[in-house]
Amino acid sequence: MPNRYAYLGPEGTFTEAALRDLRPDADDRARVPCDGVAAVFDAVRAGVVDGGVVPLENSVEGGVTTTIAELIKGEPLLITGETAVPVEFALFARPGTVLEDVKRVATHPHALAQCRGWLARNLPDADAHTVSSTAAAARAVSEPGAPYDAAICAVIAGERYGLRALASGVGDRSDAATRFIYLSRAGTLPEPTGADRTSLVAFIADDHPGALIEVLNQFAVRGVNLTRLESRPTGDGLGSYCFCIDAEGHVAEARVGEALMGIRRVCRDVRFLGSYPRGGRATEIIPAMSPRSTTDADFAEAELWLARIRAGAVD
Amino acid sequence: MPNRYAYLGPEGTFTEAALRDLRPDADDRARVPCDGVAAVFDAVRAGVVDGGVVPLENSVEGGVTTTIAELIKGEPLLITGETAVPVEFALFARPGTVLEDVKRVATHPHALAQCRGWLARNLPDADAHTVSSTAAAARAVSEPGAPYDAAICAVIAGERYGLRALASGVGDRSDAATRFIYLSRAGTLPEPTGADRTSLVAFIADDHPGALIEVLNQFAVRGVNLTRLESRPTGDGLGSYCFCIDAEGHVAEARVGEALMGIRRVCRDVRFLGSYPRGGRATEIIPAMSPRSTTDADFAEAELWLARIRAGAVD
Amino acid sequence: MPNRYAYLGPEGTFTEAALRDLRPDADDRARVPCDGVAAVFDAVRAGVVDGGVVPLENSVEGGVTTTIAELIKGEPLLITGETAVPVEFALFARPGTVLEDVKRVATHPHALAQCRGWLARNLPDADAHTVSSTAAAARAVSEPGAPYDAAICAVIAGERYGLRALASGVGDRSDAATRFIYLSRAGTLPEPTGADRTSLVAFIADDHPGALIEVLNQFAVRGVNLTRLESRPTGDGLGSYCFCIDAEGHVAEARVGEALMGIRRVCRDVRFLGSYPRGGRATEIIPAMSPRSTTDADFAEAELWLARIRAGAVD
Amino acid sequence: MPNRYAYLGPEGTFTEAALRDLRPDADDRARVPCDGVAAVFDAVRAGVVDGGVVPLENSVEGGVTTTIAELIKGEPLLITGETAVPVEFALFARPGTVLEDVKRVATHPHALAQCRGWLARNLPDADAHTVSSTAAAARAVSEPGAPYDAAICAVIAGERYGLRALASGVGDRSDAATRFIYLSRAGTLPEPTGADRTSLVAFIADDHPGALIEVLNQFAVRGVNLTRLESRPTGDGLGSYCFCIDAEGHVAEARVGEALMGIRRVCRDVRFLGSYPRGGRATEIIPAMSPRSTTDADFAEAELWLARIRAGAVD
Repeated sequence: MPNRYAYLGPEGTFTEAALRDLRPDADDRARVPCDGVAAVFDAVRAGVVDGGVVPLENSVEGGVTTTIAELIKGEPLLITGETAVPVEFALFARPGTVLEDVKRVATHPHALAQCRGWLARNLPDADAHTVSSTAAAARAVSEPGAPYDAAICAVIAGERYGLRALASGVGDRSDAATRFIYLSRAGTLPEPTGADRTSLVAFIADDHPGALIEVLNQFAVRGVNLTRLESRPTGDGLGSYCFCIDAEGHVAEARVGEALMGIRRVCRDVRFLGSYPRGGRATEIIPAMSPRSTTDADFAEAELWLARIRAGAVD
Repeated sequence: MPNRYAYLGPEGTFTEAALRDLRPDADDRARVPCDGVAAVFDAVRAGVVDGGVVPLENSVEGGVTTTIAELIKGEPLLITGETAVPVEFALFARPGTVLEDVKRVATHPHALAQCRGWLARNLPDADAHTVSSTAAAARAVSEPGAPYDAAICAVIAGERYGLRALASGVGDRSDAATRFIYLSRAGTLPEPTGADRTSLVAFIADDHPGALIEVLNQFAVRGVNLTRLESRPTGDGLGSYCFCIDAEGHVAEARVGEALMGIRRVCRDVRFLGSYPRGGRATEIIPAMSPRSTTDADFAEAELWLARIRAGAVD
Repeated sequence: MPNRYAYLGPEGTFTEAALRDLRPDADDRARVPCDGVAAVFDAVRAGVVDGGVVPLENSVEGGVTTTIAELIKGEPLLITGETAVPVEFALFARPGTVLEDVKRVATHPHALAQCRGWLARNLPDADAHTVSSTAAAARAVSEPGAPYDAAICAVIAGERYGLRALASGVGDRSDAATRFIYLSRAGTLPEPTGADRTSLVAFIADDHPGALIEVLNQFAVRGVNLTRLESRPTGDGLGSYCFCIDAEGHVAEARVGEALMGIRRVCRDVRFLGSYPRGGRATEIIPAMSPRSTTDADFAEAELWLARIRAGAVD
Repeated sequence: MPNRYAYLGPEGTFTEAALRDLRPDADDRARVPCDGVAAVFDAVRAGVVDGGVVPLENSVEGGVTTTIAELIKGEPLLITGETAVPVEFALFARPGTVLEDVKRVATHPHALAQCRGWLARNLPDADAHTVSSTAAAARAVSEPGAPYDAAICAVIAGERYGLRALASGVGDRSDAATRFIYLSRAGTLPEPTGADRTSLVAFIADDHPGALIEVLNQFAVRGVNLTRLESRPTGDGLGSYCFCIDAEGHVAEARVGEALMGIRRVCRDVRFLGSYPRGGRATEIIPAMSPRSTTDADFAEAELWLARIRAGAVD
C-alpha cells in the first residue's frame, strides 16, 4: 500500500499546501484531511497514516495552540521535517464572475482581518461573511446556489474547487508565513544536513530559582544558538511550567548532543521532539553566548586532550 | 456619554465574557463587538471606545497571534487589566429540543476538536458542522429554519441567543482557560495592588551573542520573576527578533523599574506594554535567580547606604 | 603640624618608593616606617598619621596576605589612592667596592630568587645571604665592619644608605611590578577622574548555589568591567567565603553605584573599600558582558524614560 | 636510590612540616631544602628529586606569588597532593634559658607581625630582630655566641636546632593555616578518592566580554563547585589575563572531565594542574548553580538516553 499522510483539513488549507511541499510525490489519495490538529496526531500515532502535517507557528486558521499542547502532553511523536508556507490570500469566484459582481465574500475570520485593507479599497460595498476555514469558503462558493459570490482563500483551495482567481495578493501584509511540521512515529531520525533544527520541551522542577537561565546556559556553554523559546504552563499546578525550545543543529552533532544530556540532567523531564532539516527561508536566530569552537572537530579535539590529561600528561 | 468598550466579536464569544468580567457595570450598549483583533486595537487607538478586550493566550477561537503582532508592531497601547476565563463549553439548543433530537451540531473547529470525546459518547450519530465562531453557531441555531439542532458554545452565547442548555462541561479538558487583556490609550497606569504583572517587548540588537541571557539577567539580578517568555521574529530580516515578556510586579516598584531601565539600556528598543493587576487564578511563575531582598524597602536601604559611602563613610 | 604618612618599613623598601610616588611633597620626617602591614593600618586608624601605604599585589617582600586580611576583617579604612612600582633590583656596595670584590651578597629571599640568573652569570663565586628585607640588606652593607660586600635592593635603599650601584636591572624578569594602596580614614572620597577603580569585599551567604555568578552578574548587567577577582575564605567556618573585587569606575558613577546597591542587596554583607584614581600603567581588564550604554548619560536617559512610562506614556 | 623530595627551605620551615605530613616515611636525607620556590620547581622538572613541596596560599614566609607564577608560566608540572599546616608559632631558646632572660628575639617579619600582641604582654622589654625566615631565626639562636636569646618559629625548627620551647601558641590568631602543594612530573594521576580537588589555569582570549562568566558557567552547568578563584594578569600585555581555579572533584569524574573539555573549547588555552586528594581540614566551597544530578551515574544515564534518541526513540 502506498504511503498516506494526514493533515489539518479541510482540503485546500495552507496545511495541504505544506504537505504538498513536504511530500511532492504524494497524489490526492495519499493525502488525508483531518478534522482538527489532534486528529492528525492520533492518525499518525495509530499507524493509520505514515506521517502528518500540522501548523506550528503563526497559522492563519489556528491549530498552533493545540499543536503545542499535543507535542508537550500527548503520546510522543517525532518531528522529522518542516516547511514554511507564505500566507498569500487570493480572491476566487466561480468562472464567469467578474470583480464588479462580487457583493458577498466568504472567508475565515483571521483571513478577513488580514484582508480588510484590500476589501475596503477594492470592494467597498461588498459584505463579508465568515466561515470555519478559507477552504470551507472556497467550497461554499463552488456549490450550486451558493450564498456567496467569492472566497478569500489560498490558491490551492481556489483551484481545488474549480474557481477562478479575480485577484491575488489581497492580504495586507506580504511577508507573513506559517511554519508547518511533519510528524512521524518513533524510528529513524533524518540524517544531518548541515542546516538542521532540533526541537525539545524542557520541564523544569517546581521551585527552582534560576532554572530558566540554567537551561539556557546548557545551550550557551556549548555554543548552540536557539531559534525559538516559549514558556508554557504545564497545567499541572502552580509553579509548574515548561519551555518549548528550537535550537540550531542536529542531535547527532556533539554540541547538540551534549547540551541535551545537560538538560536531561538538570530538568525534571525533557521531551525530545526531533532533529530535522530546516525548511523554507532562513529563520531568526537567538545567538548563544559563545559561538566559537563548537564543531564536532572541536569536541573531538577536547576529548582527546581530556584523555591525555587523565593519563597524566601536562599539556 | 457613558464609557464604551470594544471586544473581539461576535456577541457571545469568550471575549465578551472576559469584558463582562473586567467591566461588570457596563450594559449591552456599552459593549462593542469588533470583527477581528486588529479592529479592537484600532477602535481604542482612534478613541471610538474607552478600552478594548482581546485574547492573549490559549484562545479557543484565535486572535492570539494577531494580538501579539499588534502589541509588538502596531501603534502602542497600554494593557491596564487582564482576566482569565475558563474555557467551558456547553451544548445549547432551541427551547423544546431534547438531547435525543440533536442530529446536527454546529461549532467552531477548535471547539469541535476539544469536545470530540463527549460527542462520541453522547451523540455518536450526530453530524458536526463547523462555522466561524462558537457564537456564530449559537446564533445560527437560534434562527428560524436553522440548519442545525444545537450549538457547542460558551454559556454567554447560548443565553444571548435565547437557547437552553442541554449539557454543560462538554469539553474534554476541564482546566483550560484563556487569558484576555484590557487595552487603553496612553494615560494613567493602574495603581499597584501587590499582585501585579508587567508586560513588555524587548527588541534585541542584531548580532549580539548572549543577548537573551543578558536580558533575563536584568530581571534575575533584581529578583524579578517572569510569568511568560516568548521569542518572536520581528519580521525585519534575518537575525532580528524580540522577546515578549510578562514579569511579576508593577513598574512603580523599585525592582521592576530598575530592571526596565537596565533592559532599556542594553536593548535596541523596548516597548512597555503596561503594569496591571493579575487577574483570575494564580499563574505560573518562572523564578528569577535571587528572590531575596527585593522589596522597595530593600532598595531604599541600599540607596541610603550608597549615599553614605559616596560621602566617604566606610560602612 | 604637617601631614605624616605611615608605610611598610624599614626605610628603603619598595613601599617607601610607592609612598614617595603618591606623596611627592612629603619630606623625610613626614614618612613613618612601620614594622609590618598591620602596624600601618593601626597607625592610620589611630590617627597617628594622615594616611598609609601598603603593598596589595605581587609584593617582593610580602605583606599582601596581611593587607588583604586587614582590608577584609580589620576596622574599616578607605583606599584613596594607588600606584604601581616597578620591581627593579640593583646591586649596591660601599663606595670603592668594584664588582670583582664582591664575595658575599645580602638580600631578601624573594629578591634572591628573582636575581639568581644574574648572579650565576656575573658573580658565580659569590655567596648569597638572606636577611629580613632588601632594605635591611642595604643597611647591613653600609655598616662599618659589615659581613657582606654588596646588597641586592631597590635603588631607593642603596641611595638611602650611601651605597653605590655596581649594576642595575639584576632581576631575571624586567616587567614585574607591585601594586601599592594608600589608606585613609573615613571621610571624603577622591573626585572621579575618568580613570578610576573601585574596590570592595562581597561576603556571600552560606549555602547559596550560584552566588558567585549572581554577584558577577550585578556588574555584568551594568557593563562594569572588573580588574581583579579573588575568592577568600572568611575563616568563619565551612562554606563561608568572600570575594575581593576591583572594578573599573568610581562609585559616583551611576553604573558603579547601581551595581554596588545590587550587591548590597544580594550579599550577606559588602564592605566598600574605596574609589580612587587608577595608578601607574594600565592594568588588565576582565570585560563585563555588555559594555554598551553604561555612561551616566545612558543611565539618566533610562531614568527619564522610566518616569515617562510610570506616568502612563507608551514610549 | 630512595626517593628524594625538594621543599622551600631552609630546614625547619612550615614547608618542611608540610613535606613531613605528605611523605611521613621520608627520612632526613630524603628531604632537600631549596633556596626559593623556583628552585623547588626546577629540581622537580630536572628529575633531581621525585617531587617537591611549596606553599600555595596564606604562607607566613612567602612563596605564594612565585608559586602561582611558576604554575601559570613555568614548564608544566602536576599537583598530585596537598596539605594544610596550621600556622602555630612558639618561642624557642637554648636549653637553660628562662623567659625572664629573653631580651633579644629573632624571627621573620611576617611572624613578628603576627606575634606582636603576645610579645607586648609577655616580653614588653625585649627587642625584636627580623631575619630571613623563622627557621633562620632558630638556627641563629642555636649557634655559639648567638646575638639573640630566643626565636619565634615553628615547632619543627625549634626541635631541629636543639632548642627548648619557652612558650607555644604565641601567635595572635589561632586559626591560621597555610596550604601546601606537592609537585610531580607528568605521569600518573592520583586515583580518585571521593574527596578530591582539581586545579587549572584558564587563559581567556583578549577582547571577549563576558568571558569570565562563560568560564564559570562551564562549571555551573555541570554542577561542579569551586573552592578558589583568582584572576591574574598574564603579563603578556593589556587585556590578557587568566584565572587560577580550584574545583571540587577529580578529572576522572564525568562532570569534571566535561567541564574541562568545555573550558578547553572556549578558552585561548587551559593548563591542567592536577587532580589530587583534598588535604587537611575541609575547605571553603563556592557552590555552583545546580548541584543536582552530577554523579557519574547521572552522566551515564544521560548518555544512554542520548543514544536512544539518536536512534529514533521518543523517550
